[in-house]
Amino acid sequence: MAENRAYILTEMTWPEVKEALDKVKVAVIPVGAHEQHGPHLVESCDAVRATEFCRLLAHRMYPKVIVAPTVNMGVSYHHMPFPGTISLKPATLISVLEDIVASLKVHGLKKFLFLNAHGGNQATLEVAATIIHEKLGIDIAWLQYTSLSREAMGQHIKSQLSGHSCEREVSEALYLAPHLVKKDRISPGDLKDLPYRYMSIGGGQIGVNYTFKQITANGALGDATRATYEAGKDIVEEALNRVCEFLEDFIGKR
Amino acid sequence: MAENRAYILTEMTWPEVKEALDKVKVAVIPVGAHEQHGPHLVESCDAVRATEFCRLLAHRMYPKVIVAPTVNMGVSYHHMPFPGTISLKPATLISVLEDIVASLKVHGLKKFLFLNAHGGNQATLEVAATIIHEKLGIDIAWLQYTSLSREAMGQHIKSQLSGHSCEREVSEALYLAPHLVKKDRISPGDLKDLPYRYMSIGGGQIGVNYTFKQITANGALGDATRATYEAGKDIVEEALNRVCEFLEDFIGKR
Amino acid sequence: MAENRAYILTEMTWPEVKEALDKVKVAVIPVGAHEQHGPHLVESCDAVRATEFCRLLAHRMYPKVIVAPTVNMGVSYHHMPFPGTISLKPATLISVLEDIVASLKVHGLKKFLFLNAHGGNQATLEVAATIIHEKLGIDIAWLQYTSLSREAMGQHIKSQLSGHSCEREVSEALYLAPHLVKKDRISPGDLKDLPYRYMSIGGGQIGVNYTFKQITANGALGDATRATYEAGKDIVEEALNRVCEFLEDFIGKR
Amino acid sequence: MAENRAYILTEMTWPEVKEALDKVKVAVIPVGAHEQHGPHLVESCDAVRATEFCRLLAHRMYPKVIVAPTVNMGVSYHHMPFPGTISLKPATLISVLEDIVASLKVHGLKKFLFLNAHGGNQATLEVAATIIHEKLGIDIAWLQYTSLSREAMGQHIKSQLSGHSCEREVSEALYLAPHLVKKDRISPGDLKDLPYRYMSIGGGQIGVNYTFKQITANGALGDATRATYEAGKDIVEEALNRVCEFLEDFIGKR
Amino acid sequence: MAENRAYILTEMTWPEVKEALDKVKVAVIPVGAHEQHGPHLVESCDAVRATEFCRLLAHRMYPKVIVAPTVNMGVSYHHMPFPGTISLKPATLISVLEDIVASLKVHGLKKFLFLNAHGGNQATLEVAATIIHEKLGIDIAWLQYTSLSREAMGQHIKSQLSGHSCEREVSEALYLAPHLVKKDRISPGDLKDLPYRYMSIGGGQIGVNYTFKQITANGALGDATRATYEAGKDIVEEALNRVCEFLEDFIGKR
Amino acid sequence: MAENRAYILTEMTWPEVKEALDKVKVAVIPVGAHEQHGPHLVESCDAVRATEFCRLLAHRMYPKVIVAPTVNMGVSYHHMPFPGTISLKPATLISVLEDIVASLKVHGLKKFLFLNAHGGNQATLEVAATIIHEKLGIDIAWLQYTSLSREAMGQHIKSQLSGHSCEREVSEALYLAPHLVKKDRISPGDLKDLPYRYMSIGGGQIGVNYTFKQITANGALGDATRATYEAGKDIVEEALNRVCEFLEDFIGKR
Repeated sequence: MAENRAYILTEMTWPEVKEALDKVKVAVIPVGAHEQHGPHLVESCDAVRATEFCRLLAHRMYPKVIVAPTVNMGVSYHHMPFPGTISLKPATLISVLEDIVASLKVHGLKKFLFLNAHGGNQATLEVAATIIHEKLGIDIAWLQYTSLSREAMGQHIKSQLSGHSCEREVSEALYLAPHLVKKDRISPGDLKDLPYRYMSIGGGQIGVNYTFKQITANGALGDATRATYEAGKDIVEEALNRVCEFLEDFIGKR
Repeated sequence: MAENRAYILTEMTWPEVKEALDKVKVAVIPVGAHEQHGPHLVESCDAVRATEFCRLLAHRMYPKVIVAPTVNMGVSYHHMPFPGTISLKPATLISVLEDIVASLKVHGLKKFLFLNAHGGNQATLEVAATIIHEKLGIDIAWLQYTSLSREAMGQHIKSQLSGHSCEREVSEALYLAPHLVKKDRISPGDLKDLPYRYMSIGGGQIGVNYTFKQITANGALGDATRATYEAGKDIVEEALNRVCEFLEDFIGKR
Repeated sequence: MAENRAYILTEMTWPEVKEALDKVKVAVIPVGAHEQHGPHLVESCDAVRATEFCRLLAHRMYPKVIVAPTVNMGVSYHHMPFPGTISLKPATLISVLEDIVASLKVHGLKKFLFLNAHGGNQATLEVAATIIHEKLGIDIAWLQYTSLSREAMGQHIKSQLSGHSCEREVSEALYLAPHLVKKDRISPGDLKDLPYRYMSIGGGQIGVNYTFKQITANGALGDATRATYEAGKDIVEEALNRVCEFLEDFIGKR
Repeated sequence: MAENRAYILTEMTWPEVKEALDKVKVAVIPVGAHEQHGPHLVESCDAVRATEFCRLLAHRMYPKVIVAPTVNMGVSYHHMPFPGTISLKPATLISVLEDIVASLKVHGLKKFLFLNAHGGNQATLEVAATIIHEKLGIDIAWLQYTSLSREAMGQHIKSQLSGHSCEREVSEALYLAPHLVKKDRISPGDLKDLPYRYMSIGGGQIGVNYTFKQITANGALGDATRATYEAGKDIVEEALNRVCEFLEDFIGKR
Repeated sequence: MAENRAYILTEMTWPEVKEALDKVKVAVIPVGAHEQHGPHLVESCDAVRATEFCRLLAHRMYPKVIVAPTVNMGVSYHHMPFPGTISLKPATLISVLEDIVASLKVHGLKKFLFLNAHGGNQATLEVAATIIHEKLGIDIAWLQYTSLSREAMGQHIKSQLSGHSCEREVSEALYLAPHLVKKDRISPGDLKDLPYRYMSIGGGQIGVNYTFKQITANGALGDATRATYEAGKDIVEEALNRVCEFLEDFIGKR
Repeated sequence: MAENRAYILTEMTWPEVKEALDKVKVAVIPVGAHEQHGPHLVESCDAVRATEFCRLLAHRMYPKVIVAPTVNMGVSYHHMPFPGTISLKPATLISVLEDIVASLKVHGLKKFLFLNAHGGNQATLEVAATIIHEKLGIDIAWLQYTSLSREAMGQHIKSQLSGHSCEREVSEALYLAPHLVKKDRISPGDLKDLPYRYMSIGGGQIGVNYTFKQITANGALGDATRATYEAGKDIVEEALNRVCEFLEDFIGKR
């Protein structure tokens, strides 16, 4: 049965893992965050989205993929002004990832994908992959999965300044894990002007320290009231298709 | 309604957290592990037990307690010979805990409990509490919760060499999270003789490097076939009562 | 006289620095690399380009900008298969940047720009800025400057798979520091097929460990034989204009 | 002669060490502390007790045991309110132990015992043993030696809340190193109520940050006026017997 | 032609490095500082002197020596009270050196010289050489080069309390890199009494924390007005001769 | 009485320390090593000499000086080829010193002297003093004490290549702690030619990685058969006089 045909490490006993390892080619590590997501998404949103996306991926790629436990906190200093947000230091996140990879390498795994659902983690994941590759000689890929959904995004998402608790993210949540959404409180982002020209958060090229408090009073971007299950489905499924294509290449290489 | 009357950070939006923080006195961090649990318990067992115990605790202590995201991996080198086990370095676990405490301190929390479900974490938690207290001036308690259930253990548990995937742990899982248990594969520990006299794993006083492979062929201790829901309930509820008593003292102090 | 009207810290005495600090608003740290640049550019290319770009910037923004000593090595593991390449660990680069910022903070500087000429540093710079901001409360921006030259790039650069020792970089060098170019050895990249679909090096969204040896036999991308001084001038000047606009905003903010 | 028949590294020349290493099977590292010990014991008490116990052990196990230099400071933050106390960070103590083990491994030693005389070190020693074993592949045991003296403790020690500068510790000192004891100032602990129920210091199961200032005004526990040489002798000799039994097993294994 | 006959890594392409590596025996790393040098020398003085000395050395030892990129900042806390000074932490400088050595070891280099132009780096270089040798098994020498010029110093230098922005250093700069010298502002050191007897800065044996602010009001020592090109030439050339003699021994060994 | 009139922290109770702290101005930390000392000195030689010198110093400076516990291991990689030698990593030694200083700062101490008896520690002590001063704002001096005994050395010591297990060190030991000396095995150093010209070990200026195995077959330098109690006394007493003069300046300052 479909539901069962996905290797999810947290739901397996060791004899089951032992048997799976004969067939598995890639370990996928879901990487999320614990941070404010506006008035309408709960704070574990990124951790749960990463987990659920990986579950679908493992099902699609069965038996070549196994899903590791979720890294359920990430680098979220820019959300700290909002209550409840927790941020790992970049060095902590790197250590957690290194320890997971080193442990699974002991069990024979040689290729890894960091499947990321939180933009604020992306630079740290690149640094982590560089460091871990140098130390352990393991090939690692990393990806913020919604960046792959170019077509579905173009078709469905109309909000400007998207990227957090927005039309796109609520759509995704409606498809992947609707319990994340407080449907009666969905609100558009209460946006402020960006403080500087060319900021990367606004689609520019310059990174700069900022907090979400500087750009949105309610912690959300875009207009989440436009979110739909259909948009979420198309975004997630396009990303899934692309990740599967990549993984086939990744597995096939040397 | 009861189910809702527990502050669980992963299930809250930031405006909900903001409101809760006026009443909350202690943050409880569930600390688990990802490691082999014999043929009959899945590898996330300790992480899930810690999470579910904390949910009950937050309910019981509402509105004085809030539950942080679960630390879902721990120090498990002694289980590495069994497939799927992941071990954090002690320094990594300490960093994760420090980052959680430092973040929640920003939001105004001043007292913490590390609620631990995995014996292999216990020394690291003590070191973490020492380090974090020195750095951040925060009061921290730490506890492997089943150690509090003296009476229920004496009444229900008959196995010798208990402590992992055993009569006690399966009983607990049946009460807290029955989906962790593969009921058709429950087996007694396939035990070997302990390699040295006075080992702490055997109830002695000498700590020494060892792996579970040296003491049990199937990764389990004790006799899990004797596990019952009732034993689990009594063990968990006794621990809950004691933790609540402690927290009342902890909150009341200065 | 123009040449002199730029605050370059390496060329000043302490009484000159003392006087300048009354007017300076931002310290710019040039960040380069020491790595192979194909048969036609010397290995210090990125360090020198960063330095020369900053010199022009300090002149343009005089007296609001001061240029720190150049960070002349960076994160270059992906070029290590080519002789002479030196790579810093990401943690080392972060420490160097932190020490520079901490020292200049003692002298009263409060805003910083990491002016980067090497793509491989970009993730580490973001992590560095995050860490240093948390520790020191200093506002930091970071930028790979050619990413700002959208118009000039569109007009001049025809090569595919640009980004290293290519038409764009040689053009820049001809304008900023022609001694970097071995004009008699300019060659097009000796390219191989990319190993995976959707790789970020190829304009995709998936980061993955790779080395330049896997994608180019001579260490160059694109077609450097098409490089011109004019293209270099337009690319550099467009970036300069944009950085100046950003810095005006950055200085003006609180 | 007996006194000479014990391998004590600090008292040997390198040619003597070279000869001894042919016969030695285990290196024992005495681990103490430098901290307040009430009005009647000097601050080096734990370091000296560890040293003297190891001297007896090396004599008893001659020629199978060699004693390393004493680690004469430990983790003592909980005694810092009393003048003179010095605390190592846990990470420092771990580094010291790792460097000793790594050095002696170069000389051919493969099994180690951390012989500990200070409760506050115990968790750090467990973490150290875990880390060092992972890094160096060396088998390590660790032990707070008085925990082995169950029978002698039951027979001799009547004080409640024992464990520091108490009836037990002064008795030991009278036997092992009487110069540690200021006999004219021996006083019972000036005890306060424990701040929380179930504290591990009080025999419970919950660890929590505290200082000795919170539980005793003069820095002592129990009633040291009841201490005797005979109690000390029985406690030490029972522990010695048990450690020797353990070491025979430890040496014999693989 | 002479100028070209020196292997300077920053000025070479990778194919040139590849060819050179067949003949090179030692990599020399110039180590400088960025710090105040009184009213008459610019702050990059030590970095530039180290670089230029190494250029002469590589020419003299061609083709046995290759010069790495310059470490252009060092340990300069004692100059921090003067504007513009930047200090690396000792741990940062060690990491930079380790990364350079580790990278060049990948390219086949096995012997290294840290050619130092700043006294404040000397202890850190010794520690770095110790650490890197233990980690990488590479033979490293380190040297503050002017310490070798005993004869020329005795003949030319008359100032007392020499060592920074003094008669000796300005003389050297006039020979090695005259653009470092602001000739119209050359001044004698504005000296204060040393705070303690036997200080190593005053030729004694006791090291102690101090800053240059405590010993000179203008940041210079000695009497730089006595500096000459001839003195600089003799000092540099004597050091060059001695370093070459050492390198012949160093290369010849094993 | 004299013997008692010296503040030695290891021999005091906390009430005694409390009283002493009203008068004490400087804490002196004895720093030794555990390493081979040829056929005639035991391996703890440097740790014991440092301790005994400090005891005399505390007596001479009573009540202004207090002696901390001895750092009984140091940086000794260059002695590792001889059995029994233990080396701390430089970072470990720095951490130990930092923890001691930080702890004693809590008790009110503000000035420190690292009294060193082992040349191999000297660079690490300078780095440690720099780091700790920056972190804690504490004034620290450091000294290898025999370097102060210029006159007595010139008068008594005739050996060339002195510095370890030599005429000077055995003389000192005869005066400070005769039990360190195996009098029936005193031998001259079994010296080899130095491998390179200008080595600092041979009185030159170039530091370089080496081991004592390369320069002496029996681990000793010089000619220890010439050692006398009188030479030791004069060397120690001259150093004591100079250190006392320095400490008077050090205490008097600000």
